Amino acid sequence: MSLKQKDLTGIASLSAEEIMQILETADSFKEVSGREIKKVPALRGKTVVNLFFEPSTRTRTSFELAAKRLSADVINFSPSNSSVVKGETLLDTARNIEAMQADIIVLRHSSAGAAETLARGVKSSVINAGDGWHEHPTQALLDLFTLREKKLEFRGLRVAIVGDVAHSRVARSNIYALTTLGADVRVVGPPTMMPACIERLGVKTFYDLDQGLQDVDVIMMLRLQLERQGRALFPTIREYSRLYGLTTERLKIAKPGALVMHPGPINRGVEIAPEIADGFSSVILDQVTNGVAVRMAVLYLLSGAGN
Amino acid sequence: MSLKQKDLTGIASLSAEEIMQILETADSFKEVSGREIKKVPALRGKTVVNLFFEPSTRTRTSFELAAKRLSADVINFSPSNSSVVKGETLLDTARNIEAMQADIIVLRHSSAGAAETLARGVKSSVINAGDGWHEHPTQALLDLFTLREKKLEFRGLRVAIVGDVAHSRVARSNIYALTTLGADVRVVGPPTMMPACIERLGVKTFYDLDQGLQDVDVIMMLRLQLERQGRALFPTIREYSRLYGLTTERLKIAKPGALVMHPGPINRGVEIAPEIADGFSSVILDQVTNGVAVRMAVLYLLSGAGN
Amino acid sequence: MSLKQKDLTGIASLSAEEIMQILETADSFKEVSGREIKKVPALRGKTVVNLFFEPSTRTRTSFELAAKRLSADVINFSPSNSSVVKGETLLDTARNIEAMQADIIVLRHSSAGAAETLARGVKSSVINAGDGWHEHPTQALLDLFTLREKKLEFRGLRVAIVGDVAHSRVARSNIYALTTLGADVRVVGPPTMMPACIERLGVKTFYDLDQGLQDVDVIMMLRLQLERQGRALFPTIREYSRLYGLTTERLKIAKPGALVMHPGPINRGVEIAPEIADGFSSVILDQVTNGVAVRMAVLYLLSGAGN
Repeated sequence: MSLKQKDLTGIASLSAEEIMQILETADSFKEVSGREIKKVPALRGKTVVNLFFEPSTRTRTSFELAAKRLSADVINFSPSNSSVVKGETLLDTARNIEAMQADIIVLRHSSAGAAETLARGVKSSVINAGDGWHEHPTQALLDLFTLREKKLEFRGLRVAIVGDVAHSRVARSNIYALTTLGADVRVVGPPTMMPACIERLGVKTFYDLDQGLQDVDVIMMLRLQLERQGRALFPTIREYSRLYGLTTERLKIAKPGALVMHPGPINRGVEIAPEIADGFSSVILDQVTNGVAVRMAVLYLLSGAGN
Repeated sequence: MSLKQKDLTGIASLSAEEIMQILETADSFKEVSGREIKKVPALRGKTVVNLFFEPSTRTRTSFELAAKRLSADVINFSPSNSSVVKGETLLDTARNIEAMQADIIVLRHSSAGAAETLARGVKSSVINAGDGWHEHPTQALLDLFTLREKKLEFRGLRVAIVGDVAHSRVARSNIYALTTLGADVRVVGPPTMMPACIERLGVKTFYDLDQGLQDVDVIMMLRLQLERQGRALFPTIREYSRLYGLTTERLKIAKPGALVMHPGPINRGVEIAPEIADGFSSVILDQVTNGVAVRMAVLYLLSGAGN
Repeated sequence: MSLKQKDLTGIASLSAEEIMQILETADSFKEVSGREIKKVPALRGKTVVNLFFEPSTRTRTSFELAAKRLSADVINFSPSNSSVVKGETLLDTARNIEAMQADIIVLRHSSAGAAETLARGVKSSVINAGDGWHEHPTQALLDLFTLREKKLEFRGLRVAIVGDVAHSRVARSNIYALTTLGADVRVVGPPTMMPACIERLGVKTFYDLDQGLQDVDVIMMLRLQLERQGRALFPTIREYSRLYGLTTERLKIAKPGALVMHPGPINRGVEIAPEIADGFSSVILDQVTNGVAVRMAVLYLLSGAGN
């Protein structure tokens, strides 16, 4: 079993069938991580390189664990500032890694399109682990996996994505994935955090959270990137929190039993109230667990190990 | 074989029997590291995460080697500054690691009590690899292992711990361990480096090194943390060295054949004269070797692999 | 099969026979990296420590991959600034690593002679992965391997090494290696980048690139270390590039079919034109691929695994 494509650079290029194939493959890998001995020999002797130009301990760790549980050899390759100073192009760096016979390159980069560029330039498989504000496909896949695990049907599922949609690759990948599977997606946030023409992606826009949450089955909160606050998309964090933070009161507006998701790391008391993050509606830690399983599935399918 | 407790957060909570059980388990693991093929499958398929909030290449390496020689999958997770900027709490970080099905989390943190907090908050086993000025239990265990290997009896053993006792988690863990096993412990250092009420831990205090060394079997030198010298606990390094540095002359005050220990890294010519560090009395490199064995034992016992 | 010496600190101490032995051993390891399952158990249970005092993602990765494909346990030990602040000497750091029963220490250090010092101070085998401006033996070995793979005879082979020869350990190791094997080596560069008395190593000096390239079989371009430009060895990069950059026009001066090498990372358009780096004459990516094979061979031979 394998994917038709060499790479996973985004959800936009996946069909509904391909998405479902990945989720079904992840089912069996989730079982592996629950065993006493969390390891299968599927990728023994394969080389996976985590090429992270932006720091991301969390995503890197998830991929590293996924690769190790598949028995692959994993290398963390984080070009330091000095290395960028050395003046090598992204493609040259990647071709060097390819020349060391890497089977799969997992790329995190600050520029949209970096993964696509790489995928075209090397024979190794490329997995996009986040490229600028463009896509973060494995995050969307783990979100879908989590919803499916909770027995939700994608067709007609009403999902609100809340926060800084414009600067979120997580939002974009989820919009592609959910609309492809027939869900009814809405985005909620202040006008300064809404990309132009977002409706073209088949979503509805709400600027008011209370309205946006009405009758939804799933609430995906986005992280407020406090470290980028210099860009001044919002007067104060407190005001953002008052208008767009998810509280117990607001959760009641959604359908009874609605699920709350967050890609992490969470800002407690900013975009999400602590009692919600830790409450029954939250599937935030399920998302983390499922991230390893979904990444194992993607690594496995791209490696061609199943052929 | 396993420990009753889920975690190893400090020596203070261990009985004499538990300490001896760890040391005996370490005996067999020390043998493994001496083999041609330094590897046993005991922790195959287990996940060990080194969660180091303070940099410590040395301790991290010792744990990493221990885990790898047990065939565990090891992840180094060092939250960068950027990650702290992202505003996640310690417990949220740890719960994410737990959600990725880590069996054991090895924690180094600048706050006393961090390991205890974590241990209560996650189901994974937690090993304290140093929390602020509180405890560093595996360091004390490797020190005990080294003394036992040199055929010393703990009961009645006279041990001097010399240096900045107030700011030393190594001192604290060793005081707990040695007094639990019946040793006669004294602490030696300038008044500014002595914690208040240290006698309550069952030790004697000396401000004069020559007096403190009389009739001791073991001298544990603490590292002078030059990088913290800004805090001005002592007028000059030269003066500290003159009053509290271990020299060949001073070593003669101790019992003939007394052993010299140091947790490393050593400051040659500051707290310890080079000829002592490299001399017959020194067991400093034995400590390093035994550190791997003791950490293998702790990982093994907490993993429940021996059940 | 093994080397007579415990360490590989430089090419200068190798005989022609020893060089050829390493290259022949690398042949079989190159085959391993081309397999579906790129892994052999030769160094299972051995510990390899990458001790890198200078950052070098590329070389470190090559050694890490080599060790992992041999099934060794690999530890990356990068003394941070904090660790240097802690005041430990190089030898003490290395003795600690040795005490953890490292079989092989791979050392990158900014001081010439560091590998030699270490090799004499520890029982572990030491591989020099670059020490100051002195040597970088595995780079020269992979260059030789690449030439041999291209069916070139070393005896009488005319090789031009072009660039900042004075500050290049790559140049120095290649000069030793090539002259030992009977090649005819010339160095080309501006007077400010030529070491005094370089002719004593048995090479000819050219200050003019067009003259230096006449009738050569192989052109080894050195990287212009842009990040060190503050040292002002040359008025401007543009001028350097115009006088010493390899262009399509200039390549025609060399023998037809001459090979172009570069240790990487390349500065496109500075020391080498992009169309040459990517063209038929270039073996730059072969060098990277062969680097893993040669390092596997060196690790294998020093480990004594073949005995």
